[in-house]
Amino acid sequence: MLTIDEAQRIVLESVAALPAEVMPLLEALGCTLAEPVVAQVSLPPFDNSAMDGYAVIAEDTRGASREKPATLRMIGDVPAGTALSRTVERGTAARIMTGAPVPRGADAVVIVEHTRPGGAGGVEVLVPAMPGDNIRPMGGDIQSGQVALSPGQRLGPGELSLAAALGHTDISAVRRPRAAIVTTGSELVEPGRELPPGAIYNSNQALLQARVVSAGASIAESMHVPDDEAAVEEALRRCASADIILTTGGVSVGEYDFVKNALQRLGEIKFWRVLIKPGKPVAFGIVLGRPLFAIPGNPVSALVTFELLVAPALRKMSGREDCAPRTIHATLLADLAHEPGRREYCQAVTRATEDGYVVEASAKRGSAMLTSTVGANSLVVIPETSEGLRAGEEVTVIYPVYRDPWA
Amino acid sequence: MLTIDEAQRIVLESVAALPAEVMPLLEALGCTLAEPVVAQVSLPPFDNSAMDGYAVIAEDTRGASREKPATLRMIGDVPAGTALSRTVERGTAARIMTGAPVPRGADAVVIVEHTRPGGAGGVEVLVPAMPGDNIRPMGGDIQSGQVALSPGQRLGPGELSLAAALGHTDISAVRRPRAAIVTTGSELVEPGRELPPGAIYNSNQALLQARVVSAGASIAESMHVPDDEAAVEEALRRCASADIILTTGGVSVGEYDFVKNALQRLGEIKFWRVLIKPGKPVAFGIVLGRPLFAIPGNPVSALVTFELLVAPALRKMSGREDCAPRTIHATLLADLAHEPGRREYCQAVTRATEDGYVVEASAKRGSAMLTSTVGANSLVVIPETSEGLRAGEEVTVIYPVYRDPWA
Repeated sequence: MLTIDEAQRIVLESVAALPAEVMPLLEALGCTLAEPVVAQVSLPPFDNSAMDGYAVIAEDTRGASREKPATLRMIGDVPAGTALSRTVERGTAARIMTGAPVPRGADAVVIVEHTRPGGAGGVEVLVPAMPGDNIRPMGGDIQSGQVALSPGQRLGPGELSLAAALGHTDISAVRRPRAAIVTTGSELVEPGRELPPGAIYNSNQALLQARVVSAGASIAESMHVPDDEAAVEEALRRCASADIILTTGGVSVGEYDFVKNALQRLGEIKFWRVLIKPGKPVAFGIVLGRPLFAIPGNPVSALVTFELLVAPALRKMSGREDCAPRTIHATLLADLAHEPGRREYCQAVTRATEDGYVVEASAKRGSAMLTSTVGANSLVVIPETSEGLRAGEEVTVIYPVYRDPWA
Repeated sequence: MLTIDEAQRIVLESVAALPAEVMPLLEALGCTLAEPVVAQVSLPPFDNSAMDGYAVIAEDTRGASREKPATLRMIGDVPAGTALSRTVERGTAARIMTGAPVPRGADAVVIVEHTRPGGAGGVEVLVPAMPGDNIRPMGGDIQSGQVALSPGQRLGPGELSLAAALGHTDISAVRRPRAAIVTTGSELVEPGRELPPGAIYNSNQALLQARVVSAGASIAESMHVPDDEAAVEEALRRCASADIILTTGGVSVGEYDFVKNALQRLGEIKFWRVLIKPGKPVAFGIVLGRPLFAIPGNPVSALVTFELLVAPALRKMSGREDCAPRTIHATLLADLAHEPGRREYCQAVTRATEDGYVVEASAKRGSAMLTSTVGANSLVVIPETSEGLRAGEEVTVIYPVYRDPWA
């Protein structure tokens, strides 16, 4: 049986970044930049004042003091957003606001606090200025023609704000994956209905929808089909325009495993099971030309296999390079039993402390124990050969899980 | 002047969690639960099989082996989602699928791999079973009547899936804050237009929109007004139905600071500036009955003050208890100069390594240096009294920033 590392390699080799799409800045939040953003203007676009004050010629203020101020004649006002047509000449100054363009002739800005009103509307400068004081030079942040954002950059508020500052309303980013969800199982009833004997509520649809959205992907289709091979096949065909297909249930050894049969007919299955616990009966392949994950029906298995295989695939499709789940080291707070065999992943709460991370696994561990996921933000990894982990041991933890790590 | 700690305390004392709202499960993703979710059914709702196999009476398999199998007569099939009307009696078995209800009479399930076909459609059990083997007992995950999710719980895929498993389609969660954004400044031009002399593009609208969304809040209004007191006042009145109002610009010492005047007329300002760098001219108050942040116009100041003050307010309004920015310790990779005075926050990239976190601050540090935010995921904190931080020092870092930390 395949190890999880081999399975992850197969998945990441089988999927590729989606095409770029030009989209409004806000829609690109969290996406990966596809085309470089080159500065069409410099930032700032002109020399401007960093403070509210007076634009002066520094030489005019040489030796100025409270006792012997430099008295300058006022030639005008420069609010932000305007440009002064007059030139500051020797013996003159212009009142200037933060962000306003420094008028021709001036080479420094004296802050208001270093001045007092002079006679006849003039100003007295009380502290000598040096050329360049309180002036933000044109292009000091970025020069026109330079690359502001490079492909592969993930787009957050700062990056999108920079694109706006350069005059862009749209940006070319890798398209968000659109996922199709097909839950299967004749025993499943939609929440909100009456529960007949032998039936349980469909919790996997909510689970996969929420996890797809928290991965930054969108939901193209979401449907449920009973254990009927024709119904499964028809559902899969309806999903063929999505970027990725996720099914749950129907892939174990029983005779009612309709999904398995449909997949084998409609595509190429690359693996059928992986040496992990929970989540062993997870399958992956290319079906109807789309990457398809057949996720086990037990909800804890579904969450774990999503983190280990589906989330990395979605990251790669989103153009990211950091696709694998992130691991940290943490101190285990209580013993965790384990029988050697499969690598095991336990629902856990990880907390940062002054002395590093500590991690506590959920008391419940079954693959159907949905309450074990409440508040969980991480998975403790128990190695295949382990005969159990001990309290106080430093262990490997996948953290965070169930939401897309951004940074 | 106020310290940032005092300012954060004032902000968090001035805002409260928003009211609860009943919403579909998927809309509640990332929200905080408001009302307890009590299990109306047990999970699982009935004893069910953990494996595909045969429901038997354990006593019938005592001493069974490959050489001396226990031969049982088949009384029926139990696919998942159905219930068997017949009772398993001594000497009989029923074929059962994973998840199907264990029929009356049976007290164990023997996995397929431990059986072989017997004569006349019967089954031969090759390994003795113990009572309870491969049976998931009713209520083993949660019992009807128990609290499944408690108020304050943040709702991720696992928690929402549990609610669905209990039959819920909706959930009562704290409503997402709706934020109104008002950028001000006659020097600002919308991206996509021609840039007149003395003007710059409005980058703060994109910045605040993206940061509001990445905080899990929604945008109720987003507008730009010139430096005109009546226009500012009219804009604020249009925002009065939002949960929180964010303005940029217009609150420094200059004569063109129209926002300040409008705020003073329309509400109570609790502080006007804070002893931090960048971001000193940040104001907070209750205006038209809404919490209002007057954010400085320089984009780096806007990002920093959002992290330090606005994001904590949004978390509190979202019903969260972990409102303050999260800090970690990290090893500084290069010297950072500092003049004692204000607490300074430097844009930085933090990375986890085998030996803990390392952090590198952006080379550019001005409050208008938008390129310093590209790729930044954290803020290095330089204490007020510091005369500079040295490479190799362990420093305090706010991490992550610009996206809402989930875990």
